[in-house]
Amino acid sequence: MLLEAVYHRSGNADCYAYDDRTIHVRLRTKKNDLRAVKALYGDKYDWEQTASEQFLHKLASDERFDYWQAELVPPHGRLRYAFALIAEDETVWYTETGFQKEKPQDPLTFFDYPFLWPDEVLKPPGWVKEAVFYQIFPERFANGDPSNDPAGVRSWEEADPGPHDFYGGDLQGVLDRLDHLGSLGVNAIYFTPLFAAETNHKYDTTDYLKIDPQFGDTGSLKKLVQACHERGIRVILDAVFNHSGALFAPFQDVVRHGPASRYRDWFHIKQFPVQTEPRPSYHSFAFEAHMPKLNTANPEVRQYLLDVAQYWVKECDIDGWRLDVANEVDHEFWRHFRKTLKSLKPDFYILGEIWHDAMPWLQGDQFDAVMNYPITEAILDFFAKDAIDAEQFSHRINLLLAQYPQQVNEAAFNIVGSHDTPRLLTVAQDTRKAKLAVLFQFAFPGVPCIYYGDEVGMQGGADPDCRRPMIWDEARQNQELLAFYRTIISYRRLHRAMRDGTFQVIYAKDRQLVIRRKDVDEQLYIGFNNSGHPAVADIALDSQVPLEIAIGEGSFELTGERLSISLPPYGGLILRAPLS
Amino acid sequence: MLLEAVYHRSGNADCYAYDDRTIHVRLRTKKNDLRAVKALYGDKYDWEQTASEQFLHKLASDERFDYWQAELVPPHGRLRYAFALIAEDETVWYTETGFQKEKPQDPLTFFDYPFLWPDEVLKPPGWVKEAVFYQIFPERFANGDPSNDPAGVRSWEEADPGPHDFYGGDLQGVLDRLDHLGSLGVNAIYFTPLFAAETNHKYDTTDYLKIDPQFGDTGSLKKLVQACHERGIRVILDAVFNHSGALFAPFQDVVRHGPASRYRDWFHIKQFPVQTEPRPSYHSFAFEAHMPKLNTANPEVRQYLLDVAQYWVKECDIDGWRLDVANEVDHEFWRHFRKTLKSLKPDFYILGEIWHDAMPWLQGDQFDAVMNYPITEAILDFFAKDAIDAEQFSHRINLLLAQYPQQVNEAAFNIVGSHDTPRLLTVAQDTRKAKLAVLFQFAFPGVPCIYYGDEVGMQGGADPDCRRPMIWDEARQNQELLAFYRTIISYRRLHRAMRDGTFQVIYAKDRQLVIRRKDVDEQLYIGFNNSGHPAVADIALDSQVPLEIAIGEGSFELTGERLSISLPPYGGLILRAPLS
Repeated sequence: MLLEAVYHRSGNADCYAYDDRTIHVRLRTKKNDLRAVKALYGDKYDWEQTASEQFLHKLASDERFDYWQAELVPPHGRLRYAFALIAEDETVWYTETGFQKEKPQDPLTFFDYPFLWPDEVLKPPGWVKEAVFYQIFPERFANGDPSNDPAGVRSWEEADPGPHDFYGGDLQGVLDRLDHLGSLGVNAIYFTPLFAAETNHKYDTTDYLKIDPQFGDTGSLKKLVQACHERGIRVILDAVFNHSGALFAPFQDVVRHGPASRYRDWFHIKQFPVQTEPRPSYHSFAFEAHMPKLNTANPEVRQYLLDVAQYWVKECDIDGWRLDVANEVDHEFWRHFRKTLKSLKPDFYILGEIWHDAMPWLQGDQFDAVMNYPITEAILDFFAKDAIDAEQFSHRINLLLAQYPQQVNEAAFNIVGSHDTPRLLTVAQDTRKAKLAVLFQFAFPGVPCIYYGDEVGMQGGADPDCRRPMIWDEARQNQELLAFYRTIISYRRLHRAMRDGTFQVIYAKDRQLVIRRKDVDEQLYIGFNNSGHPAVADIALDSQVPLEIAIGEGSFELTGERLSISLPPYGGLILRAPLS
Repeated sequence: MLLEAVYHRSGNADCYAYDDRTIHVRLRTKKNDLRAVKALYGDKYDWEQTASEQFLHKLASDERFDYWQAELVPPHGRLRYAFALIAEDETVWYTETGFQKEKPQDPLTFFDYPFLWPDEVLKPPGWVKEAVFYQIFPERFANGDPSNDPAGVRSWEEADPGPHDFYGGDLQGVLDRLDHLGSLGVNAIYFTPLFAAETNHKYDTTDYLKIDPQFGDTGSLKKLVQACHERGIRVILDAVFNHSGALFAPFQDVVRHGPASRYRDWFHIKQFPVQTEPRPSYHSFAFEAHMPKLNTANPEVRQYLLDVAQYWVKECDIDGWRLDVANEVDHEFWRHFRKTLKSLKPDFYILGEIWHDAMPWLQGDQFDAVMNYPITEAILDFFAKDAIDAEQFSHRINLLLAQYPQQVNEAAFNIVGSHDTPRLLTVAQDTRKAKLAVLFQFAFPGVPCIYYGDEVGMQGGADPDCRRPMIWDEARQNQELLAFYRTIISYRRLHRAMRDGTFQVIYAKDRQLVIRRKDVDEQLYIGFNNSGHPAVADIALDSQVPLEIAIGEGSFELTGERLSISLPPYGGLILRAPLS
């Protein structure tokens, strides 16, 4: 047994409360090293009466490790636990004090989860799991009101946006096009910033309390959110609180009055007078002079931004904030943010933009979830770029599942592209490959989000090319892709196992992948052939199940507990087995 | 290279800010597997200009692993980093996305510390590192005022305390005996609870705002703290906020009025009417009916306890709180606690009682440090019980150093016994072994605390025997031990390297141990022979240093860079080399 590979430390994703009664414990071991893992657990103050044993199940595996999980319900909210690592030839016990051959007797040496406080359990809103998001970059989605167009807008048909161009998209345009979203089947919208700013992307806020006049006004947003809610569509906005725009009045005050400004501590000024060359004399986002970093640790700034955050909930009834550059803002700010917003609207969704390991923000006191960039990378690497094979892909996605608590995975925001990246179809260069990627996106735990236009086959390279005006001409839309999006969205919304079931990679070889999702009502086997030739995946099932093709192309053969799935080149399918 | 053994995850003790400029990164690797580890780091927004390399140093080693650390100063407060793992025959690079043979080029795949916020750095008060604590169990230290004795006190000379006995110790007694503490050399006192309660240990608070009348009154504490401060002695009290006593008025109100009580949500009542048999019908500490658990997540309770915590600072100017059963109280309570107390008194010491891995409380938002129970166990196992050898001991203490951020280790509260455990001398059964244990306690990073009476050789088994009345009769005091305590306390207070220098085990074999502490001014080699026969430890030094015996018995021989330390049975010494 390779003891160096064994890892467990109470906290993070290794031991956390999943709900008000249940604690998940996980253990990492060397891949294929163990036959089983068992937890020995009980209440620390009543050990003899409460000591129990429960086997862990294999949650996921990657290149080097198996990850095991058990869902334990401690009798009094307090959990002491140890592990039995069971190999073919030996059993080793593992406690907080290390490894031993004999069953440990002293629970004081065990691992510990001291007391389950329901207020501390991370509980993303229930609707998030049910959501299919649609991301709108408002300057490019639809121009519903030419009267608010900025001077010199380009024609909507010119599909070569420069970094500083304007096309005239606005909120009225979104309102006019809600039927498109309705018929697509999405039930949530994520808007990139809407507030007054200089640029076309609006990440340089000038006025946090004003809708950019090019997009409309507070009334337009109110009307739009109301119309969305009437259709069962939720709306989240982009909160750019790490930095403001340079024209934000408090920053201008500092520029003008220097150290005498009452706003001097609203930013991180390294040196007066404020200068922008050669480098800004203040902390800014990525050294961008027009994006001065806000001092969110200053209670005055904190209160100002919390007021902003609440204002748009109170005024327009929005359903969530997506937090831009969330990891460069202080934790304390986000703790206040969570408390403030959740008490205003208990099922509010708080989604952080973090590109790296986000565990410190996902402890229950800050975010509900993060933008799942690692899954984007993995999906593109396997389905679009052919940079990795199915096995490597399964290692990448399995590691993700093992890295975060289950409720975080269930609320993760899964994208295959955005306003910051080349479009899926442009990277994949094949509608069939794009469809496989989307099929996977919709079958993976978490919340899928469609970048506007991907559903009609829009193309676009790196920013600003990925921000072309939306194609509304049906003749130019990829109708095959659109139909596929409608089908998969509808299927996910109708089948709970697609959203909320257990997830397991059960076949990963060369360029073929089969995953299983399973809940109490049904099992779904979802197969992918990411190659240019027909392929067959042979799988041994746990038990015999009655299968039928639900979606997709290909065929299957079921011989006893042997399942053989045949897929055409770049084909995918969903096989369904009702369980009840 | 055993890649399964490599561990690093941003956060916890693997990547943390040590001060306003410096970030420590650590990496775990298989023991003796690597020749060196190098960090490649820079600013994410200016990679080309800022990319730098720095070697990590070996911080510690245990049975299976080496732990490496580097102190990095990122140019703009943001740190991206990757590791080069350098073995004799290969170099492997390690980033957040895994291992690779080629030097990684894309910093987006690196590990990340997004932004250093000075307010978020854990900074224990400076005085803590300089402190030598003395723990007083007030009922048993000294009886200065017989007029406040409870009825039926036992004679001070009867050294066989029962669980419910009273002896009449009080605050006047402590005031009368400050000369003892002064001559001993301690500069901080930790008092177990002082507030009105039924038991002799007072962990069942009846009135949080009242000194127990058996001990004195608010005036006595005020006078005592003032007298301590005049002598340069700081005072911390025990905060029992996890639970109250059953006679605490709000709980009595719940007992009387049931669900109608306005205090019903101050506790965790599972069922009305409140019952104590067979088990309490409410959450309590360890099922003890007389210790009902407080609902610290209730804002009203939180405010009440924060007011209590502040009251004793404002009223009596205490310097810290030791937090009883700290891990069963909610994190949010402690976050409020920290903010409230630190803004009242910036150099206030917040010390949690946690017996298990305490990392979740040591992130900068809650405690300054915890009671270091694992070091107690290790010291007793090696020095007192002979249950492990020097090598196993070195593994245990090295793991501790690698497990927590450096500033946490520097402020850890290191005890060799307390009112909850058998006394050191009773376990060690030999003054010489007790002295070795204490020598180690004073040489280890963290803050040593002496349990009252240990310094005069008091004996005592498990609670209540370890709570005998203090021995004041000099004829009955162990003067050899007392002299040793005075010497080692004074040496630690005079030599910064003993408190604040780097710590390294440089020899650990059989029952002999040599450690080195080193700062800019001096190197100290501290040798321990925990065996009944004379022993010699041979050590290869890095460089030639002029050594002298500072404290202890034995001799040494220095031949070039070869140091040979000879120690008598159960002997220890400190060798000193001035560096400047």
